[in-house]
Amino acid sequence: VTRAHVWGASGYAAAEVVRLLHSHPEFEIGVLESRSHAGELLADHFPLLRSTRYRFDGFGDVLERATPGDVVFTAGGDDDARSVVPELLSRGVRVIDLSASYRSDEAAVYGLTEWNRDAILGARLVANPGCYPTAALLALLPLATIATPRHIVIDAKSGITGAGRTPRVGSLFAEVSGEIRAYGLSGHRHQSEIERQLQRAGFTVPVTFTPHVVPVARGMLVDAYAIFDAPVDAGAVEAAYARSYGDAPFMRVLTNGRTPSVAAVVGTNDAELRVDVGGAAVRAICAIDNLGKGAAGQAIANCNLMCGYPEEAGLGARAIFA
Amino acid sequence: VTRAHVWGASGYAAAEVVRLLHSHPEFEIGVLESRSHAGELLADHFPLLRSTRYRFDGFGDVLERATPGDVVFTAGGDDDARSVVPELLSRGVRVIDLSASYRSDEAAVYGLTEWNRDAILGARLVANPGCYPTAALLALLPLATIATPRHIVIDAKSGITGAGRTPRVGSLFAEVSGEIRAYGLSGHRHQSEIERQLQRAGFTVPVTFTPHVVPVARGMLVDAYAIFDAPVDAGAVEAAYARSYGDAPFMRVLTNGRTPSVAAVVGTNDAELRVDVGGAAVRAICAIDNLGKGAAGQAIANCNLMCGYPEEAGLGARAIFA
Amino acid sequence: VTRAHVWGASGYAAAEVVRLLHSHPEFEIGVLESRSHAGELLADHFPLLRSTRYRFDGFGDVLERATPGDVVFTAGGDDDARSVVPELLSRGVRVIDLSASYRSDEAAVYGLTEWNRDAILGARLVANPGCYPTAALLALLPLATIATPRHIVIDAKSGITGAGRTPRVGSLFAEVSGEIRAYGLSGHRHQSEIERQLQRAGFTVPVTFTPHVVPVARGMLVDAYAIFDAPVDAGAVEAAYARSYGDAPFMRVLTNGRTPSVAAVVGTNDAELRVDVGGAAVRAICAIDNLGKGAAGQAIANCNLMCGYPEEAGLGARAIFA
Amino acid sequence: VTRAHVWGASGYAAAEVVRLLHSHPEFEIGVLESRSHAGELLADHFPLLRSTRYRFDGFGDVLERATPGDVVFTAGGDDDARSVVPELLSRGVRVIDLSASYRSDEAAVYGLTEWNRDAILGARLVANPGCYPTAALLALLPLATIATPRHIVIDAKSGITGAGRTPRVGSLFAEVSGEIRAYGLSGHRHQSEIERQLQRAGFTVPVTFTPHVVPVARGMLVDAYAIFDAPVDAGAVEAAYARSYGDAPFMRVLTNGRTPSVAAVVGTNDAELRVDVGGAAVRAICAIDNLGKGAAGQAIANCNLMCGYPEEAGLGARAIFA
Repeated sequence: VTRAHVWGASGYAAAEVVRLLHSHPEFEIGVLESRSHAGELLADHFPLLRSTRYRFDGFGDVLERATPGDVVFTAGGDDDARSVVPELLSRGVRVIDLSASYRSDEAAVYGLTEWNRDAILGARLVANPGCYPTAALLALLPLATIATPRHIVIDAKSGITGAGRTPRVGSLFAEVSGEIRAYGLSGHRHQSEIERQLQRAGFTVPVTFTPHVVPVARGMLVDAYAIFDAPVDAGAVEAAYARSYGDAPFMRVLTNGRTPSVAAVVGTNDAELRVDVGGAAVRAICAIDNLGKGAAGQAIANCNLMCGYPEEAGLGARAIFA
Repeated sequence: VTRAHVWGASGYAAAEVVRLLHSHPEFEIGVLESRSHAGELLADHFPLLRSTRYRFDGFGDVLERATPGDVVFTAGGDDDARSVVPELLSRGVRVIDLSASYRSDEAAVYGLTEWNRDAILGARLVANPGCYPTAALLALLPLATIATPRHIVIDAKSGITGAGRTPRVGSLFAEVSGEIRAYGLSGHRHQSEIERQLQRAGFTVPVTFTPHVVPVARGMLVDAYAIFDAPVDAGAVEAAYARSYGDAPFMRVLTNGRTPSVAAVVGTNDAELRVDVGGAAVRAICAIDNLGKGAAGQAIANCNLMCGYPEEAGLGARAIFA
Repeated sequence: VTRAHVWGASGYAAAEVVRLLHSHPEFEIGVLESRSHAGELLADHFPLLRSTRYRFDGFGDVLERATPGDVVFTAGGDDDARSVVPELLSRGVRVIDLSASYRSDEAAVYGLTEWNRDAILGARLVANPGCYPTAALLALLPLATIATPRHIVIDAKSGITGAGRTPRVGSLFAEVSGEIRAYGLSGHRHQSEIERQLQRAGFTVPVTFTPHVVPVARGMLVDAYAIFDAPVDAGAVEAAYARSYGDAPFMRVLTNGRTPSVAAVVGTNDAELRVDVGGAAVRAICAIDNLGKGAAGQAIANCNLMCGYPEEAGLGARAIFA
Repeated sequence: VTRAHVWGASGYAAAEVVRLLHSHPEFEIGVLESRSHAGELLADHFPLLRSTRYRFDGFGDVLERATPGDVVFTAGGDDDARSVVPELLSRGVRVIDLSASYRSDEAAVYGLTEWNRDAILGARLVANPGCYPTAALLALLPLATIATPRHIVIDAKSGITGAGRTPRVGSLFAEVSGEIRAYGLSGHRHQSEIERQLQRAGFTVPVTFTPHVVPVARGMLVDAYAIFDAPVDAGAVEAAYARSYGDAPFMRVLTNGRTPSVAAVVGTNDAELRVDVGGAAVRAICAIDNLGKGAAGQAIANCNLMCGYPEEAGLGARAIFA
């Protein structure tokens, strides 16, 4: 059994990490640090943790109590993690950072599980991918073996938990309900994260990225369109996706007319993927839970690999919706 | 044409007042005072006002610019209105206060339109009722002519706009969606408002009031149960409701098995009402728009009466939903 | 390991039974009979079963293949179960009927787990309670030791899955979204089920029952109000609830101002309960998942008891929402 | 005053036509023909018409009672309109067909108001555009003066009323809520309608069209991406949109970082549009109400023009949501 701590434990993704750790066979929960809620019960903040007895710990408790061999999930604001991660690493603690702090840092392994599994196995610091990059890259990376597209369009639809739990007018029920809106049109911070990883895979290509919020709490659907200069061979594309994900336990590449469903992946670490070829255009659609595969689920899978546990450990829960 | 100002113009009810004034044939919009958003376009805050060009005015502008014969809708926080209302009244300005400041004050007319129409006609200051009291009292007051119940239960279900536009975790989409919850169980401020008006009507009777939030933005359904000591005559009850509301332009007392529908009243000043008698129990169900009849719609109707315009002026819009 | 079959496997409650059986340590899934979908994959009908490979079996398959020692969940329409249950029982198969067919039949044990645990232990046929009766009875039955109320009001708010999966205009998204409505006002079939069980517990008292639909897919909140002739002792009431549910693994009697939350119980077999005393009125609020404790979850718990497994077996999953 | 009839009056778009006609200053409502609901009150079918007294007329009533100078909105299933339209036209009745029956027929004027205003003015038969084509064409047609793109991607998000009011499992609340899904991936009937109109405008270019359903009742957001061979001049693009829609009363081309909002257009005939240029890619986002500008609103505007009334007549209502 490995002891796991959460630093910055009061947000949606952190609560999901706690939920997954709570029923995980290999981890026990240590410190749950929250600057603003120290001493309070998590059960009073998160309905999904109502039956638990965990309390938020105070500022500094992770640094004080983490010992070699432990793991820490850092889930604070972007760049905040830099205030604790170096010290944790120096003590022999492994870190999975859910913020954007280390995603462009060569010192960290980019934790897109299906594409970096080997590097994650031996990593001390994993930069857990953002939710949009996770879905977009899962949809696009298999195309790297086909050809270089002329242009990529990524049209993403997300649940509002992606905006976090800090109260803002734009996240209120009355503002999100009945609304469909694009945002971040002059540049979302996930765009550069996507471009960097695409470049690593050999795609140096212009990307148009449009994130949207739709009225769901959790879940995300990303439509990725790659426009090539010449018609693409559909058989080769299908083969590339099958090859990329044939052994991946959380990937479902759909065939026979099935389409990705957010309701089928919410609450899980699963991703559903479908690819269609039409002339010189390839459309790949990917559904994930933005708090699951797009955050906490992938973080647990990565942590499993880092600690030598099976990738699927503690991630067996299924979606519950109709 | 009468000039109408709004003091405290940045909340949901105030925006609804502005929407109704905007298309009202008898009023023109004057000052729209907002402490926090002075200078900004309302169109940038409220989708429903997107096609307008109004800007928020600054602190003090209503007091400075209101002149005799004008009307002011005060829509700030509870008791804030007391800082401006006396001065406005002294200048010959009529005031409709949407806060709770004057609801228990004898200096104001309690603006439950259907029950205080005559007093409202000559009023200088109307205390506009709360949303829960509006629906509960419309449901219960006709029973005053029947008998005094032993106990009253009021079980209310409200949309989240009733909690206001100030960002709080409990009003976030991800907290309201999928949730049904009671609140204010140790005493909601609307309970005393309801009890006071019931007492005026002769009901000195214990009231159990339970407000709930359900995942809708606008609208409210109130089930009011009056438990009597002896069986009640159904015909007399039906007659009492017909008599109470037969001439009221915004009241629909439903018969033939029809049930009140929130979707039928959202966006309007209408109330739908149904009453059933079962032995010694009477159940009256009332549907209103919490921002319409429960706030801005009733305020406009009251203002119409105060200014000598037809009660229905500017309130002809219908609900838009499927 | 016991073999479990589902007869009438295409509805929401049946899918939830399959989901729970799928990850249950003590049962293996046998026949999943559906008249209308024989041969089709459940994964193509239910997102939550997307990762499974089960197929619907054909008409008559349960009767043909169930053998002594097996269990069958009958989840067809009301009274349909009478066409198969006697034959199944005669073969030594245990039956949990999720329909209303046997709820007033002395041949069956009424499966309200917390109140009939001993009888369920040895039962061959359990009539699984309706969702409204489950929540209402859990809320009210502890009061039987206090006094007999003069009147009971049950005001219930349900998610739309309670109306089943058969397509009807009233269950369409565009009709349920933004709407709050009462229904069944001239007599819901669950009313007599509630009254019968209350009478068994000694409450021969008039009941006013008002079911509502609110815009959630799953979950139910029931406010039960008992009006007595004289003030009630709050301490005695609290003690009665603590005594009734102190050992019940799925019951959470809330204190310290906590209120029942549907989001906290969706996807689980849990019930949250809170009781308040005000003079001669007692208000007990109960939150359950209408498909969990109100249907499939309670059915699995009952089946666990019938088969000699721990009541909690296979029911450890937690809610997933924010 | 012109008499207006509706043929096929029981669907969502037809109810919206009735709602708009009801408060229209120039039309009076004649026959509301519904095969399945003849004799019933519309108020019992549509909350939004609850305060009206209209009844559905019977099969054949429009043909029997329409007289020269009348207008008929045909809103039946696709191609059904062909059974009545020729006869209506031969009698001197003008027809606005909301189905797909005449959208590729040279005998009809394609009723995209902003682009065919002159032809609509004298038309006897207008084929009212589909909702997706309306939003997509409004977004793309101004580009015709810029250059011919290499590829067009249309990623559309629609409310579920677009699927109609006929009950189907896929339109149930419990299936739509919490879900984001693409559909019609092997060819939606609106794709050829879009391509035909783009070709008329000079765009003979491959189109990838992906419609999605998101959990809203009404409203639609379409992201249209045009990929060119060379960088595009942003100033020229902006000028093209300003020129195309500068005088159009229902078009709002947004600037200064504003983004199209579905909540701002629901219940209206408005369209909000924003265009961004990034290198060789142009992204134009358009928000409409699928039942407003995408169906009934545009039909009324077209009918206004055909009858010589102002384009805006009867279309002044604003959105009502927060």
